[in-house]
Amino acid sequence: MLTQPRALLLALIAIGAVSLSPLAVSHFDDKEINQSYRQSWFALVASNFGPMASTVKGEIPWDQARMERWSSDLAALTSLDVTRGFAAGSDKGTTRAKPEIWENEADFGSKLDDMTSAVAQLQKTVATGDREAIAEQVGATGKTCKACHDEYKAKNYLY
Amino acid sequence: MLTQPRALLLALIAIGAVSLSPLAVSHFDDKEINQSYRQSWFALVASNFGPMASTVKGEIPWDQARMERWSSDLAALTSLDVTRGFAAGSDKGTTRAKPEIWENEADFGSKLDDMTSAVAQLQKTVATGDREAIAEQVGATGKTCKACHDEYKAKNYLY
Repeated sequence: MLTQPRALLLALIAIGAVSLSPLAVSHFDDKEINQSYRQSWFALVASNFGPMASTVKGEIPWDQARMERWSSDLAALTSLDVTRGFAAGSDKGTTRAKPEIWENEADFGSKLDDMTSAVAQLQKTVATGDREAIAEQVGATGKTCKACHDEYKAKNYLY
Repeated sequence: MLTQPRALLLALIAIGAVSLSPLAVSHFDDKEINQSYRQSWFALVASNFGPMASTVKGEIPWDQARMERWSSDLAALTSLDVTRGFAAGSDKGTTRAKPEIWENEADFGSKLDDMTSAVAQLQKTVATGDREAIAEQVGATGKTCKACHDEYKAKNYLY
């Protein structure tokens, strides 16, 4: 019996009743709203921090206006309450969030705060236009991302 | 020949080499970064506006602190440059964005500005705690969403 939505979906795909394409960028799964919330947030964070890192590495040309925009959009994102997305019970499902998050919530929150502080400083540093200082603060910000990923983000999806 | 990534993916799914599950909430498609960027943004917007609408409709209990948080997170989101996600060429792919967006960019931008203004007013109104006024401004904000959706958002995915 196909009582599970996932099983039903697989069956529908098998018979060609649904296309895979919309799923590949289906950003919100109503059955996993917390997981979807946080993943959408991280996607936007990465899309603003990523090009800043590429800029300081010289992989793309320096565009000061875009650097300022990316840094302010990143700062706006860190003002959001992303902890909503880590509500109790959301350690299950399609996620790369390790169970350790819910065992060490204070430490996890503190690492999120470290990122928020680093991003606030990054926005200020970018505004100065001092490329050396900006590169240094991009590095410092990246370390706050990594600190959390090292401990709390799995390399592969967990089930 | 499987020269297309999507064809390859379908083949891998067919032989069971990859699971569908991660794709169902795969929030970022590196081949459709603009589409993914805007869809992540709209997902977060809807997740903050949605519960506000449910609150004023009486579907969930009124929680003033959460109303304030949702409205400020919504305001932070509208400060982001979501037009990045509508860059030239991103009318293709897995999207519900109608081609009319790129034919009427000024009107589309103006409708986005209407939403930003409505959300700014919503945040102010929520802070007053006047539930009748808040309900009215939630309605007014919803109309700015609908104005754009009516004209520029397809009911189904376009290919």
